[in-house]
Amino acid sequence: MPKYVYDFTEGNKDLKDLLGGKGANLAEMTNLGLPVPPGFTITAEACRHYLRHGGTPDGLEGEIGEHLAVLEARMGKRLGQADDPLLVSVRSGAKFSMPGMMETVLDIGLNDDSVLGLAKQSGNDRFAWDSYRRLIQMFGKTVLGIDGELFEDAMDELKGERDDTDLDAADLQRVVETFKGIVRERAGRDFPADPREQMDLAVRAVFDSWNAPRAILYRRQERIPADLGTAVNVVAMVFGNMGPDSGTGVAFTRDPGSGRQGVYGDYLRNAQGEDVVAGIRNTVPLQELETINPGAYRELLGIMATLERHYRDLCDIEFTIERGKLWMLQTRVGKRTAAAAFCMATQLVDEGLIDMDEAVTRVTGDQLAQLMFPRFAATAGNRRLTTGMNASPGAAAGRAVFSSERAVELAARGEAVILVRRETNPDDLAGMIAAHGVLTSRGGKTSHAAVVARGMGKTCVCGAEELEVDPHARRFTAPGGVVVDEGDVISIDGGTGAVYLGEVPVTASPVAKYFEGEPAEDELVRAVDRIMRHADSARRLAVRANADTPEDADRARRYGAEGIGLCRTEHMFLGERRRLVEDLILATTPEARQAALDALEPLQTGDFTGIFTAMRGLPVTIRLIDPPLHEFLPDLTDLAVKVALAGDRAGDRPGVRTEDGADDRDRRLLDAVKRLHEQNPMLGLRGVRLGLTIPGLFAMQVRAIAAAARRVEGARAEIMMPLVGAVQELEIVRDEAERILAEAGVAAAIGTMIEVPRAALTAGQIAEAAEFFSFGTNDLTQMTWGFSRDDVESAFFGAYLDLGVFGVSPFESIDREGVGRLMRTAVEEGRRTRPGLKLGICGEHGGDPDSVHFCHEIGLDYVSCSPFRIPVARLEAGRAALACARSGTGC
Amino acid sequence: MPKYVYDFTEGNKDLKDLLGGKGANLAEMTNLGLPVPPGFTITAEACRHYLRHGGTPDGLEGEIGEHLAVLEARMGKRLGQADDPLLVSVRSGAKFSMPGMMETVLDIGLNDDSVLGLAKQSGNDRFAWDSYRRLIQMFGKTVLGIDGELFEDAMDELKGERDDTDLDAADLQRVVETFKGIVRERAGRDFPADPREQMDLAVRAVFDSWNAPRAILYRRQERIPADLGTAVNVVAMVFGNMGPDSGTGVAFTRDPGSGRQGVYGDYLRNAQGEDVVAGIRNTVPLQELETINPGAYRELLGIMATLERHYRDLCDIEFTIERGKLWMLQTRVGKRTAAAAFCMATQLVDEGLIDMDEAVTRVTGDQLAQLMFPRFAATAGNRRLTTGMNASPGAAAGRAVFSSERAVELAARGEAVILVRRETNPDDLAGMIAAHGVLTSRGGKTSHAAVVARGMGKTCVCGAEELEVDPHARRFTAPGGVVVDEGDVISIDGGTGAVYLGEVPVTASPVAKYFEGEPAEDELVRAVDRIMRHADSARRLAVRANADTPEDADRARRYGAEGIGLCRTEHMFLGERRRLVEDLILATTPEARQAALDALEPLQTGDFTGIFTAMRGLPVTIRLIDPPLHEFLPDLTDLAVKVALAGDRAGDRPGVRTEDGADDRDRRLLDAVKRLHEQNPMLGLRGVRLGLTIPGLFAMQVRAIAAAARRVEGARAEIMMPLVGAVQELEIVRDEAERILAEAGVAAAIGTMIEVPRAALTAGQIAEAAEFFSFGTNDLTQMTWGFSRDDVESAFFGAYLDLGVFGVSPFESIDREGVGRLMRTAVEEGRRTRPGLKLGICGEHGGDPDSVHFCHEIGLDYVSCSPFRIPVARLEAGRAALACARSGTGC
Repeated sequence: MPKYVYDFTEGNKDLKDLLGGKGANLAEMTNLGLPVPPGFTITAEACRHYLRHGGTPDGLEGEIGEHLAVLEARMGKRLGQADDPLLVSVRSGAKFSMPGMMETVLDIGLNDDSVLGLAKQSGNDRFAWDSYRRLIQMFGKTVLGIDGELFEDAMDELKGERDDTDLDAADLQRVVETFKGIVRERAGRDFPADPREQMDLAVRAVFDSWNAPRAILYRRQERIPADLGTAVNVVAMVFGNMGPDSGTGVAFTRDPGSGRQGVYGDYLRNAQGEDVVAGIRNTVPLQELETINPGAYRELLGIMATLERHYRDLCDIEFTIERGKLWMLQTRVGKRTAAAAFCMATQLVDEGLIDMDEAVTRVTGDQLAQLMFPRFAATAGNRRLTTGMNASPGAAAGRAVFSSERAVELAARGEAVILVRRETNPDDLAGMIAAHGVLTSRGGKTSHAAVVARGMGKTCVCGAEELEVDPHARRFTAPGGVVVDEGDVISIDGGTGAVYLGEVPVTASPVAKYFEGEPAEDELVRAVDRIMRHADSARRLAVRANADTPEDADRARRYGAEGIGLCRTEHMFLGERRRLVEDLILATTPEARQAALDALEPLQTGDFTGIFTAMRGLPVTIRLIDPPLHEFLPDLTDLAVKVALAGDRAGDRPGVRTEDGADDRDRRLLDAVKRLHEQNPMLGLRGVRLGLTIPGLFAMQVRAIAAAARRVEGARAEIMMPLVGAVQELEIVRDEAERILAEAGVAAAIGTMIEVPRAALTAGQIAEAAEFFSFGTNDLTQMTWGFSRDDVESAFFGAYLDLGVFGVSPFESIDREGVGRLMRTAVEEGRRTRPGLKLGICGEHGGDPDSVHFCHEIGLDYVSCSPFRIPVARLEAGRAALACARSGTGC
Repeated sequence: MPKYVYDFTEGNKDLKDLLGGKGANLAEMTNLGLPVPPGFTITAEACRHYLRHGGTPDGLEGEIGEHLAVLEARMGKRLGQADDPLLVSVRSGAKFSMPGMMETVLDIGLNDDSVLGLAKQSGNDRFAWDSYRRLIQMFGKTVLGIDGELFEDAMDELKGERDDTDLDAADLQRVVETFKGIVRERAGRDFPADPREQMDLAVRAVFDSWNAPRAILYRRQERIPADLGTAVNVVAMVFGNMGPDSGTGVAFTRDPGSGRQGVYGDYLRNAQGEDVVAGIRNTVPLQELETINPGAYRELLGIMATLERHYRDLCDIEFTIERGKLWMLQTRVGKRTAAAAFCMATQLVDEGLIDMDEAVTRVTGDQLAQLMFPRFAATAGNRRLTTGMNASPGAAAGRAVFSSERAVELAARGEAVILVRRETNPDDLAGMIAAHGVLTSRGGKTSHAAVVARGMGKTCVCGAEELEVDPHARRFTAPGGVVVDEGDVISIDGGTGAVYLGEVPVTASPVAKYFEGEPAEDELVRAVDRIMRHADSARRLAVRANADTPEDADRARRYGAEGIGLCRTEHMFLGERRRLVEDLILATTPEARQAALDALEPLQTGDFTGIFTAMRGLPVTIRLIDPPLHEFLPDLTDLAVKVALAGDRAGDRPGVRTEDGADDRDRRLLDAVKRLHEQNPMLGLRGVRLGLTIPGLFAMQVRAIAAAARRVEGARAEIMMPLVGAVQELEIVRDEAERILAEAGVAAAIGTMIEVPRAALTAGQIAEAAEFFSFGTNDLTQMTWGFSRDDVESAFFGAYLDLGVFGVSPFESIDREGVGRLMRTAVEEGRRTRPGLKLGICGEHGGDPDSVHFCHEIGLDYVSCSPFRIPVARLEAGRAALACARSGTGC
């Protein structure tokens, strides 16, 4: 039979699975000889048994009894003893912190007899009766499931106009009687006077609270396994509210904002921990404890130093002083700001507490990303117009502009601009590049604006639905009727989603400057530099960039990219070249089609030449054209309305060009748009399917790649086929590409995206024809879940996150169980066919911390992400390698 | 070292893997003591070695030499011996027949010396020189890769105005010299005079032909593995063209059209097999051989009887008579018509050659389906207007109508109608039900019209692109300017795609009548009856129907359905109820939404009551509403144009209702359509996602199911959630459904579709919350391949089939490697979680023979298909069980 109960002297901090976080740390402190109130922990395993079988395991009751006896002996009094009662708290404590989610019952052991003993021992009648009142209230609500408001209402009625503190012992005695009446009436039983019964029922209530709806929801959202269960701690009560020589406090072992050593904390005299949380009275800085109780203060500082040395990290603690005596109630590794995390990690190295490997694991890519964005210095002087979604972090101020053209025009004059649109589309790309920030009134965090802005590392607030954007009038209207016209200055905060009128001063990030090549001067930047160097030396994953232009490629190199993992070619067909694509689509003869392709080829050759030049000998993976061709045509509905109105107005004057400008080309375009219209374009004629059905299209691109590779010394081209689902597709386009490369005398690896579920499922076959795989996890996620990203986020992702269907959007972090399983299959079976197969990822997940870890675990060779995310990916790749090495799983 | 060469005396018919089909059957006949020209087979394993390593395996040359020596000894002459040469043919012969795909070289052994010997021995100079000419021509083309037209052109030039037969020996001798010159010039070498060199080179050429482009393409299309290789047969030549006592023929051991015993075949005197194929001269019925050569005739009949007894099946054979002596050149199990297959299978049982198990495996579901459709008796009297795609088989004649309303109206008067549309949509359902057949000018075999018609077992020709359909004018125009107005009679043939003017008489199928309950009277129907009974007793899979109406449910029962596997509820919201769905969508308050749901609920209750009543105690799986709600709204573009035109015309008269009828509701609808518009509706807000985001929708349906189940004695409801991708989704809607069922006191199983790849990948988790899985292989195929069925078929499926990317559309037969792998995973992991999990399929694949076999193999409990396909599914389920039992794999 397993051991279900551990005295605090029996556990340690590594037993969190069994004892929960709170219990393990209480045991650790006990073993360090620190003043922890005695107690014991009932294991999560007992909870799991209880939840599975609907009852406590055999022998648990006896085991609790033995440990209670030891506790009573140690304290020299018995639970609920009439003349001098031992009181205990029963507290939940799961492996992962679930703040406020689960139950706690204090003051167990009080009844009509022992309340008198407590009053006598404490010399404080009011304290004793107030404790008894609290027990019945908490027990009634938590254990007996009585609506908590009934107690509160009854209390309010008794108080009348008075405050809580105005109630004296006699008042509280009446409250106790009333509360007992509520229990009797609502629970159909008396409040149990037997202390052991109180304790046993409280333990069960804590077990049950694991499956309370709010706890289930929290676990879904935080992705905490549902079957872990919670441990229960039974701790001797100590009281910080026994008079002026008592009190309670919280403290950090160093400054959680900067990492600097020192005394940081708060103290509240004559109070319990709950009072600090409730904020009833003002706390004082912890330093004042030195005056109040110099002995306890010195002892506390010593304990904090001990804990920090022992945990080798910032700790946060809770303590209580009962009549001058210090008791430690909790400790855990403390939260900290991003800047403090980096500084503290290197400080601890310099203090000899940890090594550089450990330092790298103490910081996260999210923290690094936070440090790279500019911020608003102060916003108090500006009117907040509205708050949208914080789609891409940073802060930006500039003149509002309502079209891409205007953004480019003003930016060319050196003006800072914010591009404001209802929503953006690929035609807005030039404007987005020119703008300091992007603001949209529609679309969620995965809308075009958000995705592209994040890719560029550009500040973006999207879905600011309160704004009425009128692009024709070049203005938007905010709540309260505030009108912002083109040229008016606004400021947007990508970290909070706030939109301000006027210019808010922006502070540039020294960490971003460091990555752009500036020397490391302040403490934070030096810390970042040391940690990045160590992460780079530790990581196994290479880091590449997704970059479509020489400018992006340049930045990628500066940020440390070791190649381009995804160079999309469709962005090269926008702007003025769109007309050539229209010609290609409108072509009705092979000759006309070839003429359109011939016109595009030299432009493409120029594109690739620029990128090869920028990457100076590093590999460049070029993906042949992927989107459906109709994406290059005008919108069906707009065009249909235009042509219909034009026809209607022209009336009986056929052939007349109308004032709306609908002409013959519009009509031919409308025909083409209708012909090419797709119900579900994402699942239509695109990617390799275009290559197989539009003669000459892929060939033109491969010829352009070959020509550019011949022009640039040391160019390393890798040609990637999009949307392959069957090896047969790849074989056919590969044959054509190889022929063209051979004719040009150019060597280039040929590989494929793995972005269709079937490609992953048949990766063993596909590897026969592919020298590399690159996981396109955006599409792979869309198809594996059956989600169209454009449609689902605004429609129901909010509800799904609220309902706990997933804890994080699968477009942000790789869904390991679904999408990740396909990836794992493809890696294993692809390598089985071709041991030297090169494996990478080029979906947006390539810059997401959790996804980088997953990519390391499944053995990819590289991750590729937007240039701005490269530092994050480098850091997380290092952290992943160190975590795996430490876990000993050899992943 | 493996044995690479088998004498015909060493092989047998079961060695097709090694010896190919032809070689194995030649060996079998040799061992039966039949007169087969001696020879030997070089194994497919030698070919595989050659293809893998680019050369023949060590020792092959010697092994061929030994077998050639045996052959020479047996024939009493040597290969190419000058005075009396042994000639051989070198013929390909793969495991699976690839007619015309690979190479053969005849007359090997001839050179400038042996041609004289052949002339002397045959007493026929012309024959000898013609044979030599053929050898050089065939060898030059096949082995040396010379363009065959060069030989044909040279021959034509020498012939001038004369026929082949006008050329004499001297002419042919000149042809030989010319051909040798072509070889020298084009191949850069002399035609090899050494007979053994001829033979070795021919063998290599056959090996190489395995990877000829046409063979690769054929294999892709027929899904023949690319690495099988071909065997090569070296056979002593016999000549049917040595004079009037020689000849060649083909025969069947019984009538391939009816299965009746008798003599069926053709004979051609003084000719080679190639001449029969080329159709140069007319053959005579085989019976005439009795007069020409009674001895050979009797011998042949005896051999045919032997072969049929031996193969226990219809055989087709090729034979040659050389100077009165009969030689057997080939045999194989012969092809037959659908009717013959059924009759013959039961005949062979009655003759004691096979048992009923075997008889069931001798027929196919496709053959049964063919027998169930009505056909046109004769079409000669009718003008063929055009030919479209044969989308759903059968034959139908009736008045052309151009709208669903008109179809219903005329059908109600008892008129037969053909619904003619550009394309159909769900609103045409009533018209399709009312019509005898459906004709569309757009869309492919997976268009709405095709899919729905196949589902109904209704004749459909779709994509008849030559027709210009004008629904407003109620007419269509066919090529040649033929105009068909509403009310004119047309006839459509779903088997050929032909469209005729006027009424073509239709013959009903006796097999279909049998399934409708008529007694089995003729031989064919009795055979079908016996085979169906045996298949039913053998099968392990249950067969259910996809049926949404009481009428479909009734037919399904008649056809043998054991339940409903898919009752879609969205069809119940069409027609006049569409307005209620619009109300639901336009609702802006919870009260308005609930009012719309309250109006739908009694109608739904009525729907389910009808279906439960029709199924009288058999299980009915009801899928809650699946499609996106905007599918119930008008088309965005049409509505936008209507509202724009209305607004334009109303000019400055706002609020005026225009002649186009655009009113306020239209404008509100347009707003709703725009709001709900999705880029990729298939991957948008539908299925369980609706249930989770539209309060009360699923609850309304579950309440209706519960109410109906209470009304109908013995109703067995199973509630199925659509589009589940994560167990969390299912848990939430399941909780709600269970609560409603419990309140109503109704028991119903709750399960889920597995139609999203992630559902299959996480089936182990999903099974925790599902009592059954039903594979929705339509959507699963779409998402696994990344194909939108509405878009891809017309756009590129034709090209994909031509290119051999797949041999059959994955929407017709389950793609075993991709989609099938997911299904297998889901079955294994679902059952591991819940051993009693019920597993079925309700995609269209449930009625596809190959897919039924797959479903049996992976261990499903049932297949569900359209009522009309139920007999096919029953038969194939029986065949699958028998095939698995026979294979001994225990699948």
